[in-house]
Amino acid sequence: MTHSVQLLGISNAIVDVLAHVEDDFLKDIAAVPGSMTLIDKDQARELYGKMGPATEMSGGSVANTVAGFANLGGTAAYIGKVKADQLGTIFNHDMRSLGVDIRLKAAAKGAPTARSHVLITADGQRTMQTYLGACLELCLADITPTTIGTPKAMLLEGYVWDIAEGPALAEKAAEIARSNGTAVALSLSDSFCVERHRDLFANFVRDHADMIVADEEEVFALLGTNSIDEALEALQDFDKLFAVTRSEQGSVIVHKDVKIVQAASQVEELIDTTGAGDAYCAGFLFGWANDRSLEYCAKLGTYCATMVIQQLGARIEPGLLDDFESR
Amino acid sequence: MTHSVQLLGISNAIVDVLAHVEDDFLKDIAAVPGSMTLIDKDQARELYGKMGPATEMSGGSVANTVAGFANLGGTAAYIGKVKADQLGTIFNHDMRSLGVDIRLKAAAKGAPTARSHVLITADGQRTMQTYLGACLELCLADITPTTIGTPKAMLLEGYVWDIAEGPALAEKAAEIARSNGTAVALSLSDSFCVERHRDLFANFVRDHADMIVADEEEVFALLGTNSIDEALEALQDFDKLFAVTRSEQGSVIVHKDVKIVQAASQVEELIDTTGAGDAYCAGFLFGWANDRSLEYCAKLGTYCATMVIQQLGARIEPGLLDDFESR
Repeated sequence: MTHSVQLLGISNAIVDVLAHVEDDFLKDIAAVPGSMTLIDKDQARELYGKMGPATEMSGGSVANTVAGFANLGGTAAYIGKVKADQLGTIFNHDMRSLGVDIRLKAAAKGAPTARSHVLITADGQRTMQTYLGACLELCLADITPTTIGTPKAMLLEGYVWDIAEGPALAEKAAEIARSNGTAVALSLSDSFCVERHRDLFANFVRDHADMIVADEEEVFALLGTNSIDEALEALQDFDKLFAVTRSEQGSVIVHKDVKIVQAASQVEELIDTTGAGDAYCAGFLFGWANDRSLEYCAKLGTYCATMVIQQLGARIEPGLLDDFESR
Repeated sequence: MTHSVQLLGISNAIVDVLAHVEDDFLKDIAAVPGSMTLIDKDQARELYGKMGPATEMSGGSVANTVAGFANLGGTAAYIGKVKADQLGTIFNHDMRSLGVDIRLKAAAKGAPTARSHVLITADGQRTMQTYLGACLELCLADITPTTIGTPKAMLLEGYVWDIAEGPALAEKAAEIARSNGTAVALSLSDSFCVERHRDLFANFVRDHADMIVADEEEVFALLGTNSIDEALEALQDFDKLFAVTRSEQGSVIVHKDVKIVQAASQVEELIDTTGAGDAYCAGFLFGWANDRSLEYCAKLGTYCATMVIQQLGARIEPGLLDDFESR
């Protein structure tokens, strides 16, 4: 099987609305610092009315990974639902301008393109309040052999399970992938998301996923443990490739009886922590898609994450691979 | 006369679409580095298709000044035309969140909200290609004693003269202002704009304007000279208050027989030059509106400009006045 692209991402297509806020702002809206909360249209309107001036840029967890993968020089495609409105145009433009093949047409009707209100506090932490809008209308009919194609790897994000037809379309996508020899990767999104869908995730990991990219908290939520040693031991019992990020404690890749422990890199100035996991995932999968060793995947993932937290914006910039190779 | 607000701005309401580009990109689209060019809808679509991923944020020259004035702690209002679309919502939100009183309702019909494609080259210079969209629909009917109110100062930008009814609405606004004891200020926008409308600007300065804020090139274009000494001498013949910015050569305030020469400040790291003139104008007018000395106006204007070129984004941040006062 020839692969049309190296990576296909399926995820929530979101435009970020970024603003700096005081810590008290989070208290006022009763938001847990660092969390991602889903809000409806009215809540979004109310929240936006309270927020200060903002900057808009394309976001979304796996969408960031796909953009980063393309910026590393990989070939990529994307399935996510936007409306044909101004934010949808922005989202698709930003993807296409990186060479990402957008597989769905923007919807003429329905809810507006999703936005995530990203509230950045002085410590560089992001708290997200997300209105999913058009994302919720991603449906089974959007997932076909034509839209999936024959990628080398397909990456889904946990947030897809928040969509009504999400669990079913993830199954369908995985089945199409399987029949094409496409590897199936899952990014666990966030620990609250894992708690919302723990059993479904456990089944998907068991039945469909070849690779799982997650941070430590997400793995804990999936396995119902709080011990990293216990978790890593448990992961060795699966016949899967796990990449587990641990913030300043680096990352661990677990593949059956192999465990690769990668230390974190020195950070000169922390600007904005989020996007780190998505960038790690981009680097990890880029290495994997290019048949590099797992050590290389770990090192490139770490490098991508380290770079992205030292800039404002969750997507890694072009030229990063050259910098990595010439370290 | 009690003034409802200190400053009312009338200008093109624009959302900036910012992207970093190579120098060659400007050559490909035949753009003069540092210039602002007006483009139509089709040109905008074509240009955007060529551009890389972008960041969106509220912009517009005098709109930046009004936002900065509000962030300094001044009371402000704004007249500019947006459509009730997503970019229009963003523009109005960002203004209102600073306490700026938006005087016009977003239009339900007509052209979409304006956007300026801001192409940033490695030297920090910005080249702008602007699709005016809804701005072009600002009309005489929008300018009434109710929408103008009774501000202490009213600031127009030269770009307003690019609108079909612009010259007429500027006259009407100036007449309403005059009857209210509102001072009329004019920002000359850019030297190409001055060349487009030189005679109309000369008449407006003579008949209506009390204050003119401009950079050296704009003054040269207005007066038809290339000598700063000649220009400053000529300005002394007007019974007007001129604030002339000269980049790294500082600024000069000219008011009849008084000339205040202010040196530029040390810049640690130049990030992005544009917004400097708008920020200067905000500081200058904030000093003026608070009955401070012209020296104070010059110093605060310079401080605002110096700060804004050391950040990404054309609008000055809150807290700047405290930093200025406690230098």
